Amino acid sequence: MRPFTFHNPTKIIFGSGTIPQLGNEASRFGNKVLLVYGKGSIKRNGVYDQAAESLRAAGLDIVEFPGVKPNPVLSHAREGIVLAKQEKIEVIAAVGGGSVIDESKAIAAGAANDGDVWDFYTKKAAVEKALPIVTVLTIPATGTEMNGGTVITNENTNEKIGVTYQPLHPKASILDPTVTYTIPADYTAYSAADAMSHLLEGYFNNSDPWTPIQDRYVEGLVKTIMECTEMILKDPSDAQGRATMMWAATLAWNRLAVAGVGKTEFPCHMLEHPLSAIYDIAHGAGLAIVMPAWMTFQSRRDPAKIAQFARNVFDVAEKDDTAAAEKGIAALKSWFDKIGTPTSLSAVNIPADDIAKITDRTLALAKVWGITRYTQETIVEIYGICK
Amino acid sequence: MRPFTFHNPTKIIFGSGTIPQLGNEASRFGNKVLLVYGKGSIKRNGVYDQAAESLRAAGLDIVEFPGVKPNPVLSHAREGIVLAKQEKIEVIAAVGGGSVIDESKAIAAGAANDGDVWDFYTKKAAVEKALPIVTVLTIPATGTEMNGGTVITNENTNEKIGVTYQPLHPKASILDPTVTYTIPADYTAYSAADAMSHLLEGYFNNSDPWTPIQDRYVEGLVKTIMECTEMILKDPSDAQGRATMMWAATLAWNRLAVAGVGKTEFPCHMLEHPLSAIYDIAHGAGLAIVMPAWMTFQSRRDPAKIAQFARNVFDVAEKDDTAAAEKGIAALKSWFDKIGTPTSLSAVNIPADDIAKITDRTLALAKVWGITRYTQETIVEIYGICK
Repeated sequence: MRPFTFHNPTKIIFGSGTIPQLGNEASRFGNKVLLVYGKGSIKRNGVYDQAAESLRAAGLDIVEFPGVKPNPVLSHAREGIVLAKQEKIEVIAAVGGGSVIDESKAIAAGAANDGDVWDFYTKKAAVEKALPIVTVLTIPATGTEMNGGTVITNENTNEKIGVTYQPLHPKASILDPTVTYTIPADYTAYSAADAMSHLLEGYFNNSDPWTPIQDRYVEGLVKTIMECTEMILKDPSDAQGRATMMWAATLAWNRLAVAGVGKTEFPCHMLEHPLSAIYDIAHGAGLAIVMPAWMTFQSRRDPAKIAQFARNVFDVAEKDDTAAAEKGIAALKSWFDKIGTPTSLSAVNIPADDIAKITDRTLALAKVWGITRYTQETIVEIYGICK
Repeated sequence: MRPFTFHNPTKIIFGSGTIPQLGNEASRFGNKVLLVYGKGSIKRNGVYDQAAESLRAAGLDIVEFPGVKPNPVLSHAREGIVLAKQEKIEVIAAVGGGSVIDESKAIAAGAANDGDVWDFYTKKAAVEKALPIVTVLTIPATGTEMNGGTVITNENTNEKIGVTYQPLHPKASILDPTVTYTIPADYTAYSAADAMSHLLEGYFNNSDPWTPIQDRYVEGLVKTIMECTEMILKDPSDAQGRATMMWAATLAWNRLAVAGVGKTEFPCHMLEHPLSAIYDIAHGAGLAIVMPAWMTFQSRRDPAKIAQFARNVFDVAEKDDTAAAEKGIAALKSWFDKIGTPTSLSAVNIPADDIAKITDRTLALAKVWGITRYTQETIVEIYGICK
């Protein structure tokens, strides 16, 4: 165990039929609410009506701000900030998936402060106060509903940056698993890969040799996510599978998994970002491609933790670490195949000839993230494994 | 998964050398602090000096309130409330084990409200506001450092009542595992039994047949607590064992283990309370006596979950649930024997002839807690198993 501070004040309201509580939660913070959402899917599945009706019933004055894109962009967040300041917004209601919540956090930070919101992403400035945010989550995957993180893409500079600030924890997040029944099979699988990667990055890349609390927490959640994914792919309306998946994805990245494990690195996210940025593939799909390859790379150097993963998640019996690791990686890859996520660059039509170009972007990101372990040679090695 | 609300806003500051952060945390809430502690052990181990110095360095005006007893009593809490009101206390610093923190919560509730503090325990009134509390934990066991619970004994009526209110979550809790190195072997073992019971009560007595997230969380923490206890009993200054134990005990009862499992019951606590109340044995010792007995009782009715525990915690291979449960219970009992906790009434000199008298108290408690499943006959059956 390493020293840590853990402070996650987000209130989670979980269960079928909980969306009508949005208004009460929001009204604790003011009367003027900015209702942020995406491209309108919440209008088709009834979530918009429930959320808006609840806000109105609680006496709130609603200003709408739709149009958040997947991989939310800075220009749109800036529009939201201008609107929030102009309308004297007191609280933000983010209704949607991770993108809607992430952009709402940018708006919350930008609207409560002077200066350029992008400075919070480049770390020129720090978020010390923000408008309060309440959320209704519709896609379990990123964990943003219960953490202080936000990822925004600056289309001018082509930078996609994620940062975390304590004041950006939502005040309350409403998780109604029944609204996730309509998420299609491919995105269900990508979300599973995403949540698993959040757990496994810290598990494989922490700086403490003995972390049984956190290891078992991760292994348990990974197994649960795998079980739920299979249940959902069999029956998209499986109530237990959908509900358990939703809470598991939140717990995967509410920072509890990494509390006490010391400094962690996120090499798989570093390797994935350029793929989704250049080729516009889903983030979860990119992760399913790079994770097994990174694990192979890692087990060539130090197979011990990969072997532990193989034994505790896939019940691999091999005593030898290298052999166990190999079997675990094969099992993970074949599970990704089974749920329909791609596991190679060729499966998403990324030509092997592009690896050099991709590697340049990855190296740039490594520099920004302060990850010093990976050279051009090792990055090429990893992409080579996932050809 | 059942509907739930989870809201745990306590900030945890964990690690060696963190006590000097107390002053800064307290000063966020005011200048006048009530420093609550016990019978002076913190003066011998240097914790008092560190805490007081930190409060002074942050510019706080300290009013001392020592003398909290193990199993804290109402009369002393009332003295604290009078003092806090008289001195216009703005924030409470609780420095000690679970008793000090629990009584500090009573003072925090009583000082911020009119009326009798005992009404909050009998549920005649609810705590809607309280003075802010910051804590320095010295004994990991009860989890009160990261929940809204408080247990107080009314010496006049001989009632020991525990209640939970959201405003009683500490604002911040400082966990420095190095201060636990001096906890003696017997109390280390009792604390382990206590933390394990917090996990297992909800695990065995929830109302949902499929809770893989929570089950694995519990199984993982129980295994970890067992490993740490053995490490500590071998070497009381084992840094990894002490630190991991401290965080595990907090996670055991911060309500995450029961979020989503539906209504839970606490029969082992119901069976234990009369033992420690009448015979003045340690709560953890009483739990080690009643837990295996309750599990035997339960496995006679429905062995499935006890069998799951046996397989996942003690690697019992038996396919038959009854046989697996039996082996798991024997393994737990023999582990309690190994760490030096009593596992029978006779081991703590409670005569079998007293069972009728004890049962009357247990039935009364069952009524207060609204546990309807246990009759005089079944309670006598369970105490009979632990003769």
